[in-house]
Amino acid sequence: MNSRSKETPKSTQMKTQKTRPEIVECVPNFSEGRRPEVIETIVGAIRDVPGVTVLDYSSDPDHNRMVVTFIGNKETVLDGAFAGVAKAVELIDMEKHQGGHPRIGAADVVPFIPISGVEMKDCVEIAKRLGAMIADKLSVPVYLYGEAAQDPARRDLANVRKGQYEGLKVAITDPDRTPDFGPARMHPSAGATAVGARGPLVAYNINLGTRDVRVAKEIVKAVRAATGGFTTVKAMAVELEEAGQVQVSMNLTDCFKTPIHRVFEAVKREAMARGVLVTKSEVIGLLPVQALVDLARFYIQAHDLTVENVLEARLLEGQ
Amino acid sequence: MNSRSKETPKSTQMKTQKTRPEIVECVPNFSEGRRPEVIETIVGAIRDVPGVTVLDYSSDPDHNRMVVTFIGNKETVLDGAFAGVAKAVELIDMEKHQGGHPRIGAADVVPFIPISGVEMKDCVEIAKRLGAMIADKLSVPVYLYGEAAQDPARRDLANVRKGQYEGLKVAITDPDRTPDFGPARMHPSAGATAVGARGPLVAYNINLGTRDVRVAKEIVKAVRAATGGFTTVKAMAVELEEAGQVQVSMNLTDCFKTPIHRVFEAVKREAMARGVLVTKSEVIGLLPVQALVDLARFYIQAHDLTVENVLEARLLEGQ
Repeated sequence: MNSRSKETPKSTQMKTQKTRPEIVECVPNFSEGRRPEVIETIVGAIRDVPGVTVLDYSSDPDHNRMVVTFIGNKETVLDGAFAGVAKAVELIDMEKHQGGHPRIGAADVVPFIPISGVEMKDCVEIAKRLGAMIADKLSVPVYLYGEAAQDPARRDLANVRKGQYEGLKVAITDPDRTPDFGPARMHPSAGATAVGARGPLVAYNINLGTRDVRVAKEIVKAVRAATGGFTTVKAMAVELEEAGQVQVSMNLTDCFKTPIHRVFEAVKREAMARGVLVTKSEVIGLLPVQALVDLARFYIQAHDLTVENVLEARLLEGQ
Repeated sequence: MNSRSKETPKSTQMKTQKTRPEIVECVPNFSEGRRPEVIETIVGAIRDVPGVTVLDYSSDPDHNRMVVTFIGNKETVLDGAFAGVAKAVELIDMEKHQGGHPRIGAADVVPFIPISGVEMKDCVEIAKRLGAMIADKLSVPVYLYGEAAQDPARRDLANVRKGQYEGLKVAITDPDRTPDFGPARMHPSAGATAVGARGPLVAYNINLGTRDVRVAKEIVKAVRAATGGFTTVKAMAVELEEAGQVQVSMNLTDCFKTPIHRVFEAVKREAMARGVLVTKSEVIGLLPVQALVDLARFYIQAHDLTVENVLEARLLEGQ
């Protein structure tokens, strides 16, 4: 019924004459997840910048945190990021902030990611420009992290966030905590901000059918890099009060090196060994279609499947 | 680490002001899978038509058959299809044709599929126009099938192909086999052609680690509509001489009603019950990204995952 050639090439790729569009992704995280009007105002400030497309936003009251995903070119993405940070600095008071996720400021972290027609060094450049603007115009100290880090220790965001907002208020005067931009002094209500560049990261949560957070903590230890797990996985345990469940909350920092399905299967198996089932998993934000292709190759053994088999990806090429 | 709001909407969709591009897909099947020069010439004839984009082509010597996947607007897709059919009629001699797949002509079947900015009735219209052109200019009789069928029995392509080329040579003069266009007489070397319109179909093969074709035949019976299987699945067993394996070769006529993973799991389970493993599965041609999303929702229990989570799909919206 269906033919696959053994000799001739499987598919032809039509290369277009057009240059690839210039797309930078930005995924700022702000420390607000409980007041809908504040969430909407921050998103609106970003969306209103010409040349910016907001692709997604989500928030969580347990974490008291929100994430916005938007794209633009090298100039507009910078303007969009600054607009969001400025609004967060205006509306969020860290002295009153409580939530389940580590944070250092109202605008906690602002990463830039190269998507199309740009390279990592372009995103590092944008991060540095934004860092200077935030310090100069908003009086918020800035730490460069990830690929934009000037100090190798700051390549890891966890080092930048050590002690969180409350600890950094004291530690900011230590020589190894000197900000990259701005004074060695927290903004009185907005704290500090980390700005950086990185590759595409998948924010991925797996919920477990138990109230016992110790199960989640054991599984976190099993999968995270710091304790013998996968090199690209960061993880933490979260209690989901509303749902009466617990969660393994992860950042997969390279979903092509360590695919989502491998992490899922490891967590699922660890849970089952403890008499617990996965109730659901969730991807926060955007996934590259390659990650879904990798998942299909694994589960339905479609060893020859590629992005070229996906209609929408081929439509993008043709434009 | 990652937030999902419980109260606020998960994501915002940025609707663009642009109209959706007019895209019709065409997936003609021709009865050539052994002579590379003929295959390339037919593909080239289609590719050379202005406004046509060839997305994929593949061929198989066991089936002695080739499939081309291309897109265009309502006018260019018609021109592309005619160019391919005319070249196949010129180069393929059905009197000499042998192969593992049912066929009625050099150009065996030409379906049109609405992808974007067009409706099924537009594709039915294109099918009728192409049918008239093939009969008038090439003297090849044409049967309208699928959504374009004038006779309800011809909605099913299997009825149009009954007896294949050899049987139709005789049966074409029967009252119920009268072509929709052209004389009740086969073209002496090119036979007849079926032209129609349908929804997106997934051509899907699953290879089994056994030489015993009876295993494949039993599994075909288990999954195909005609013998108590899934309503949307057509299947046949194929022997893969080169690989020393057998294959369940399928058309999934509605991968949203009956998803690929459900069919895979059924085939795999039937095989295991017979002591056989799946070695690989393959998708021929193009898959909508929604099918991959459905697969991920099943395997990693990502119940909230949608096309909106896929970066490339969101990039298409923004253009």
